[in-house]
Amino acid sequence: MSLKLKRYFPILQWLPLYGKETLISDLLAALIVTIMLIPQSLAYAMLAGMPPEVGLYASIAPLFLYTIFGTSRSLAIGPVAVISLMTAAAAGNHALEGSPEYITVVLILTLMSGLMLTLMGLVRLGFLANFLSHPVISGFITASGLIIAASQARHLLGLEAEGLNVIMVLYGLIARIPEAHLLTLCIGSGTLVFLYANRRWGRSLLSLIGLNPYTADIFSKAAPVLAVAVTTLVTWHWQLDQAGVKVVGDIPAGLPPFTLPAFIPGLWRDLFLAALLISIVGFVESVSLGQTLAAKQRQRIDPDQELIALGTANLSSAFSGGMPVSGGFARSIVNYDVGAATPAAGTFTAIGILVAALFLTPLIAFLPVATLGATIIVAVLSLIDLPAIKHTFVYSKSDFAAMLATILATLIQGIEIGIMAGVGLSLLLYLYRTSRPHYAVIGRLPNSEHFRNAERHEVETDDKIALLRIDESLYFANSRYLEDIVMGLVISQPKLNHLVLTCQAVNLIDASALDSLRTINSRLKDSGVQMHLAEVKGPVMDRLRKTDFLDEMSGVVYMSTYDAWKVLHERAEEAEDKPEAELKPEAPR
Amino acid sequence: MSLKLKRYFPILQWLPLYGKETLISDLLAALIVTIMLIPQSLAYAMLAGMPPEVGLYASIAPLFLYTIFGTSRSLAIGPVAVISLMTAAAAGNHALEGSPEYITVVLILTLMSGLMLTLMGLVRLGFLANFLSHPVISGFITASGLIIAASQARHLLGLEAEGLNVIMVLYGLIARIPEAHLLTLCIGSGTLVFLYANRRWGRSLLSLIGLNPYTADIFSKAAPVLAVAVTTLVTWHWQLDQAGVKVVGDIPAGLPPFTLPAFIPGLWRDLFLAALLISIVGFVESVSLGQTLAAKQRQRIDPDQELIALGTANLSSAFSGGMPVSGGFARSIVNYDVGAATPAAGTFTAIGILVAALFLTPLIAFLPVATLGATIIVAVLSLIDLPAIKHTFVYSKSDFAAMLATILATLIQGIEIGIMAGVGLSLLLYLYRTSRPHYAVIGRLPNSEHFRNAERHEVETDDKIALLRIDESLYFANSRYLEDIVMGLVISQPKLNHLVLTCQAVNLIDASALDSLRTINSRLKDSGVQMHLAEVKGPVMDRLRKTDFLDEMSGVVYMSTYDAWKVLHERAEEAEDKPEAELKPEAPR
Repeated sequence: MSLKLKRYFPILQWLPLYGKETLISDLLAALIVTIMLIPQSLAYAMLAGMPPEVGLYASIAPLFLYTIFGTSRSLAIGPVAVISLMTAAAAGNHALEGSPEYITVVLILTLMSGLMLTLMGLVRLGFLANFLSHPVISGFITASGLIIAASQARHLLGLEAEGLNVIMVLYGLIARIPEAHLLTLCIGSGTLVFLYANRRWGRSLLSLIGLNPYTADIFSKAAPVLAVAVTTLVTWHWQLDQAGVKVVGDIPAGLPPFTLPAFIPGLWRDLFLAALLISIVGFVESVSLGQTLAAKQRQRIDPDQELIALGTANLSSAFSGGMPVSGGFARSIVNYDVGAATPAAGTFTAIGILVAALFLTPLIAFLPVATLGATIIVAVLSLIDLPAIKHTFVYSKSDFAAMLATILATLIQGIEIGIMAGVGLSLLLYLYRTSRPHYAVIGRLPNSEHFRNAERHEVETDDKIALLRIDESLYFANSRYLEDIVMGLVISQPKLNHLVLTCQAVNLIDASALDSLRTINSRLKDSGVQMHLAEVKGPVMDRLRKTDFLDEMSGVVYMSTYDAWKVLHERAEEAEDKPEAELKPEAPR
Repeated sequence: MSLKLKRYFPILQWLPLYGKETLISDLLAALIVTIMLIPQSLAYAMLAGMPPEVGLYASIAPLFLYTIFGTSRSLAIGPVAVISLMTAAAAGNHALEGSPEYITVVLILTLMSGLMLTLMGLVRLGFLANFLSHPVISGFITASGLIIAASQARHLLGLEAEGLNVIMVLYGLIARIPEAHLLTLCIGSGTLVFLYANRRWGRSLLSLIGLNPYTADIFSKAAPVLAVAVTTLVTWHWQLDQAGVKVVGDIPAGLPPFTLPAFIPGLWRDLFLAALLISIVGFVESVSLGQTLAAKQRQRIDPDQELIALGTANLSSAFSGGMPVSGGFARSIVNYDVGAATPAAGTFTAIGILVAALFLTPLIAFLPVATLGATIIVAVLSLIDLPAIKHTFVYSKSDFAAMLATILATLIQGIEIGIMAGVGLSLLLYLYRTSRPHYAVIGRLPNSEHFRNAERHEVETDDKIALLRIDESLYFANSRYLEDIVMGLVISQPKLNHLVLTCQAVNLIDASALDSLRTINSRLKDSGVQMHLAEVKGPVMDRLRKTDFLDEMSGVVYMSTYDAWKVLHERAEEAEDKPEAELKPEAPR
C-alpha cells in the first residue's frame, strides 16, 4: 500500500529526505524562475486572449499540485506558448476574445484537459503520446512558432489584424505597415532588438565585463524583466498611454479567485477534440522535456504519473481562474541550470508569483502590450527549428513528408487540422510501407552460418533451393503481396524444389497472413515445390502450433536458415548423383 | 504499344486464339449461368429496393464490358447480395424506396462507383483493398448475410417491417407473426424448405436416381428456377394475387433503357463515402473470388486491371438503367465448374439475359415476391461463416476483436459504420501491437552460430555482454518504449560493458527512432556501456550511413550476432585474466 501511495504521491519519496542544502538550492532556483515567469505568464495569457492576471493565477495553484504529484525535479509548470496558442484558437471558435463567454470557454477547456490528462494517467494511456512522431512534433512546433510570431506582430505595430490563416494575417499587416502607430512601433521594435541582441550576444558581453559565465547566463535570462521595467517606467513617466500606446492597464491585485467552470453539455462536446489535442500536445512537450532533464541526472520520470501531475495541475488551474498549463521549455532549463533539487522549487516559485499577484500588479499597469509582444516573439523564435527540417529531409523522405504536411496544414488550415494531418499521414505512410515490405533472396556467406541478401553480398546459392527473407511482420496489409512475391519467385526459378521462408523479421503472422500461407503452400505443392519455414520466433511459433497449418505444410520448420540449407543442399547434391531417387520428406523436428 | 494495349484490353490476348472447342465450353457455361442468373438478378434488384427488371438490365451491358476488360476466365458479373444491400442502405438515406428519386440515387451510386473503380485501376490503387483484413471481410459478410436474411423475412410473412437495426426489425417481425398473411407464408416457407433441402440433399438425391454427380450438381444449382416456375404457375392458376399474395407484377419487356445519371453536386458529395465503400467491398469480393478460381487453373489475374474491368462494367450499368454490380460467388463457381474457358462466356450470358428481358418478362408477372425472398435467404445463409469466427478466436484474439467489432457494428450501427469500425480497429490493434514490440535477450545455441531467446532455449550468455533482439521495426510509435527496454536492461545487469542490438527484425529505423538511438547511445556512454549493432539490413544501413550516428556511436556495427559475440566474448575473457588492461574500442569494419 505504501509503495502504491508513493507511486501516486511522489512527494512522499523526497520530502522525508529534505534538508537544508536542498532547501537553499530550491530557494535560489525558485527566485530566478519567478523573475522569468512574471513577464512570461503575462505574455502567454495575452497570447491566449485572456486578461494578463490570468497568467499569474495559472502559475500558482498548478505549481503546488505539481510539487505533490510530479516526478521530475526540474520541470517548471505554467502557461506555455504553444498551448496558449491552441487555447486561443479553440476558444476563438466559440466566443469573442475579451468577452465573459471567452473566459468561460477557456476555463472549460482547462477543466476538460485536466480531466482527460488525469484519466489517461489513471488508466495508463501515456503510450498514446508515442503516436506523435518527432518530425510531426517538430513540424508542429515550428509552424506554431511562426503563427505565434505573426499573431504578435500586430501588437508591435499597434494595429488590428484579421485573416483566415497566418499567411493572410501577415500579408494584411505588411500591407498596412504605413498605418502603424509610431510610438508603439518604437517601444515594440526596441524591445525586440534588445531581447534578440541579448539572446545572441548577452552572455558573452556580460562575461566580457567581468561576470563569471554562470552569473552572466542567469542575468542574460532575466533580460525580459529589465525590458518590462524600463518600458513600463518610460511609458508611465511620459504618459505614453495618453499618446495611444496600448498598455496592460489596471490589474486587480489579490489572491486567485475561485472559479467554477460551467457545465454546458453542447459546448463540452464541441470542445472535446480541442481539449484532447491540448492535453496530448502539452503532455508530449512536457514529458519529453522532463525525460531529457532527468536523463542528464541519471534519473527517470514516470510518464503515467506525469499525466496525473499535469492533469491535477490543470484541474487546479480551472478552479482558480487560470488557463491550460504545461511544462515550459525555457524556464525548466533555467530551473535545472540553477540547480533545483526537488519539486519543492515549484512551490517556492508559486509563492513568489502569489506575492507578485498580491502586491506587484499596480506596478505593471503602464506595461506596454508591445513589450509583451516582443517578449513572445523572441521566445518563440527558438521554437523554429530549420536544421531539424533539413536533417529529416536527408534521412527519410517519408518522415519529411509527414513533417512538411504538418507545417503546411498548421499554417494554412490551423492548429487542430495541422496536428491531425501530421499524425494521420505518418501512420498512413508507415502502413503503406509495411504493406509492400522489403524482401531478399538470401545465400550463405562463405565459411559461416550467416545468410545475407544475394544481391548485396557474395554468397553461395543453389538453384533448387530458394531462401526467401521477408523483412516485415506478415499481416493483412501485406498478405496478398506475399503471395505475389512467392509466386513470382517460383516462376522465375524453374528448377526449384524447395522454398524456405526465413522468418527472422516476422514478428507476427495474423489470421489473414495465415490464410495466405495456406494458399501459398497449396499452390507450391501443385507446382511440385516444398515449402519450409526457418527461424520462426517463439511467440509466432506458439500461435502456429494452435492451428493445423504445420501438419498441412508440405515441408518442415527448421531452427535456423543454416539448418535448412545444410539438410536441403545435401539432399539436392545427393539427388544430383542419383537423379532417379525418390525424395521422401523428412519428419518434422 | 501493343503490349500496353493488351494489358488494358485483355480480350486481345485470348480472342485471336478463340476456337470451336472453347466456343462450345463457353456456350454451355453461359446457358447454365443464364438460368441461374434470371431469378438471382430479379431477387437482388428487389433487395436493392429497385424494380425487378433493373436486375436484368444490370446483367447485360456490364457482362459485355467485363468480357473486354476482365482478366478472370471464370468470374461472372452481375448484381450480388452484399452490394445490393449496401446500395439499399445508402439510397434509403436519401430517398423513399420505390420513388423516382430512389432510382436516381441508385444510378448515381452506380456511376460514382464505376468512376472510382476505373480511376483506382488507372492509378494502380488495387493495393488499397489489402487493408480489409480477412477477419473483417468475413465478419462483414456474415453480418450482411444476417441483415439480408432479416430484411427478406417480411416478404415471407407478407408484412411490412421497420426498425433502426436488424435486431429491432427481427424483433418487430417476430412479435407480429400472428398477423402474417397465410397464403404468402405458405408459398414463402414452402420455397424456403424446398431450396434449403435441395442445397443439403439435392445432389445426393439426384445421384441416387441415377444422374451422374456432375449433372446432378448442375440440376441442383438450377433448383431456384424450378421454384420460380412452380410458384408462378400456382399463383397464376389459382389467381392467388387476388387473395393478397404479393407478386412481381407487370415488367416492361424490351431492351435496357438508356439512362443518364443526374449530376447533383450536393447529392454526389453525400453519396461519396457510400459509393467508395460499395466500390471497395465489391472489388475485394470480386478479386478474391477471381484469384481463387485463377489459382485452381494456374493462372493469374491482374488486380489493377480488374478494377478497370469492374469500373467500366458499373459505368455501363449506370447508363443502361442498372445498379451496382460485382463478381457473384455462386454463379462464378458454376461458371468455373461447367468449364467456361474464356470471358466470352460472359457475353453469351448477357445475350441470354437480353433474350429474357425481351421475351420472358410477361411470364414472371405472377411470380410471388415471397419466392424471391426465399431464394435470397437460402443464398445468403451460405455467407454466414461460423467456423471462421471460431478459428479466428482460437488463433488470434486481436483478429477476433476486429471481426467481432465488425459484426456487431454492422448489425447495430449499419453497413458503413460496420466496415469502417472493422478496418479502423484492425489498424489500431496492429499499431498498438507494434508500439510495444516483443523483445528477447538472446544467447548462443551451443556449437552453432545461431542465437535464440535465453528464456526459451538453453543458451550460452555472458554477464558483461547483453545481446538484445528487438522484434519490430523501430519507428515513432515504439521509439520511447525502446529507450525504456534498454535502460531497464542496463539497470538489471550491473556488470554490463557491451550492449549489442541485434537488428535482424528491424526493417526500418525512422527519424524518431534514430533520435532514440542517439539518446540511448549517450546514456549508455554515461553508464560506461558500449553500444553495438549487429545484422543491420542493407536498406537500413544505407540510411544510417547518411547520418553521423555511426561515428557518434560508442561501439561498432557487426555483420552477424556471432561476429559480435566472438569479438566481445573473447575480449571479456582476456579482460578477466588481466583486469587492469585498458580496452580500446576496435576500428569499425
